[in-house]
Amino acid sequence: MDIQKESLDFHLKNKGKIRLELCSELDTAKDLGMFYTPGMAYVSKAISENKNLAMETTRKGRSIAMVCDGTAVLGFGNIGPEAALPVLEGKAAVYKKFTDLDAVPLCIKSQSVQEIVNFCLALEPSFAGIHLEDIKSPECFFVLRELEEKLQIPVFHDDQHGTAVVVLAGLINALKVVGKSKNEVKIVMNGAGAAGIATLEILHSAGFQNLYMLDSKGVIHKGRSDLNPIKQEALKYINSDIQGGLQDAIIDADIFLGLSVAKVLEKSDVQKMAKDPIIFALANPEPEIWPEDAIAAGAKVVATGRADYPNQVNNVVAFPGIFAGALENNISKISRDMYVKAAYNLANLISEPIPEKIIPSVFDDGVVESVKQAMN
Amino acid sequence: MDIQKESLDFHLKNKGKIRLELCSELDTAKDLGMFYTPGMAYVSKAISENKNLAMETTRKGRSIAMVCDGTAVLGFGNIGPEAALPVLEGKAAVYKKFTDLDAVPLCIKSQSVQEIVNFCLALEPSFAGIHLEDIKSPECFFVLRELEEKLQIPVFHDDQHGTAVVVLAGLINALKVVGKSKNEVKIVMNGAGAAGIATLEILHSAGFQNLYMLDSKGVIHKGRSDLNPIKQEALKYINSDIQGGLQDAIIDADIFLGLSVAKVLEKSDVQKMAKDPIIFALANPEPEIWPEDAIAAGAKVVATGRADYPNQVNNVVAFPGIFAGALENNISKISRDMYVKAAYNLANLISEPIPEKIIPSVFDDGVVESVKQAMN
Repeated sequence: MDIQKESLDFHLKNKGKIRLELCSELDTAKDLGMFYTPGMAYVSKAISENKNLAMETTRKGRSIAMVCDGTAVLGFGNIGPEAALPVLEGKAAVYKKFTDLDAVPLCIKSQSVQEIVNFCLALEPSFAGIHLEDIKSPECFFVLRELEEKLQIPVFHDDQHGTAVVVLAGLINALKVVGKSKNEVKIVMNGAGAAGIATLEILHSAGFQNLYMLDSKGVIHKGRSDLNPIKQEALKYINSDIQGGLQDAIIDADIFLGLSVAKVLEKSDVQKMAKDPIIFALANPEPEIWPEDAIAAGAKVVATGRADYPNQVNNVVAFPGIFAGALENNISKISRDMYVKAAYNLANLISEPIPEKIIPSVFDDGVVESVKQAMN
Repeated sequence: MDIQKESLDFHLKNKGKIRLELCSELDTAKDLGMFYTPGMAYVSKAISENKNLAMETTRKGRSIAMVCDGTAVLGFGNIGPEAALPVLEGKAAVYKKFTDLDAVPLCIKSQSVQEIVNFCLALEPSFAGIHLEDIKSPECFFVLRELEEKLQIPVFHDDQHGTAVVVLAGLINALKVVGKSKNEVKIVMNGAGAAGIATLEILHSAGFQNLYMLDSKGVIHKGRSDLNPIKQEALKYINSDIQGGLQDAIIDADIFLGLSVAKVLEKSDVQKMAKDPIIFALANPEPEIWPEDAIAAGAKVVATGRADYPNQVNNVVAFPGIFAGALENNISKISRDMYVKAAYNLANLISEPIPEKIIPSVFDDGVVESVKQAMN
């Protein structure tokens, strides 16, 4: 059976991947008196006198709202909120499997920054944190900033910082493999969406200095007049001394980071890179270059977003620990430093990185724990 | 152990009453490929081509959003959204126990009609229905109306129509007990909040004709200038020929319906009623009159909201079936006629009503099914 049909059947079988359950038995009138009336009335009264008690007496303390407007779903773009539901349910399932968190998929109709912000602000009484998902750039940056400012609970955009953490973790180990240091490498990021920009910003925070970024129009530099405000801000930490396209930027690059679309990197591009090229071709499901082609062209380390090749760079190793750690440690705002630390903790789980193993799998021991420990 | 402490301990034990679970095992990389990437991508793509597929391939088809602003929580009033969480979790637990529905508690910060409406409209892509809860009057009426007009999915306010269905069901059987008919009885409703007004409206739809309503200022009649728009609308079907207080309205009444506050009905009031008085004293946890006092004063049938007296009138017998039926039958708007029919179906579960048994228990056979059958 091909995977497409198998996957559809899997999703049809149980009508999705997550479901609600009761925490204990509800079989008798006495049970009902605890679950429902009059039992719940006493707890409501107690919470009305001390709001914090909701964290202990309801599921609020382990609940995360996953909010998505459907504008940037996987590699498909703006395919609508309904189509994002399988993604959010998938991530909710991952949260549940690897932590104790109850993540609630909320794919919403609103697509304006202000409506999304208002929606999330309204959720604060019911949730311990907000996980933003698949919201397109630049809106996602404005949403995240306003929420970070106005919410007392942590907020996290997985496409931005989940990706950034995992890419940085992989890069730390890839550099060990090729024996280069973060101060000296030239990095070319193809893709200036939520993930691309947030990742470069985190790489900059982590001490990477020689950074170039491209969008669909080519290299982003100070001379361009068509940049949105978020790309303009990125000019603070990316270089502006190359104009042109990927073929121009890639010359002598040590690292290609693709957070863009399928098949934009040619073998001939890889051949123009510096010695021992590192290629992260993370477009999903089809990468910027297929690993066999990259290796044939001389790449030393290749990572993709796919499970069927070595070095799968996927947020799944990051987001469960990020939120579980933030909640355990009562973090109200997750800092850039925590993300950088999480990446180092993840990278350090692999004591001797080799070209085929620079990133741990979420099933490896200690993955969630190592990320959690960075959240303080 | 007193029930207050027992209840708090029960809620603390599991941190609430509901939790998320996976629909199947997630133990291997292959499982992850189904739950998460790449499996979910194929389903997202398929839904983007046919939105309706979300009902079959995600939990949307069995998901209800429970939305509450915390302004009218049980008998406590505006105690805030956090304090409403135990109520919503309790109802979510009841939904899960008696149907297959996943109800998601969303207690929100917004308290304006327009904000609540916008919040609910945004939810439509993720849910098969919206259950409004504990929103105060008159706002709840405006919210419900606007949502009924704008949503393609069913919306239901339990405090209004859940209550109305159960009260009507109880009344149908109480009238059988005393041998009176709905055309001839004088009903005095004390309480003009969401439940009181919606219940009288449904009683009117069901053919009850001699109706009086009181709010905290006394009998509602055409001469009053202090009525909100919803109470003004109620003037269409309630009588205006009595002015004054409960002591005035109760004279020769056949039925007292209390959806108000503790201890407002005196024994002496009951003694002024017509032969074989029917008393529904539904204030929670303390009723408008204690059953033993009502009976001592001559009441023939007494119902309360409490589990520790006969005839518990509680929405729990109505709301699970209302939504389960609406979803099974693809109802996009629940009509007044469906509510009336649900009440008759519930009442008819008791073949020979007696003063101590006019309402089925949610644990009785056929309760949810009988309500479901009315939803078409």
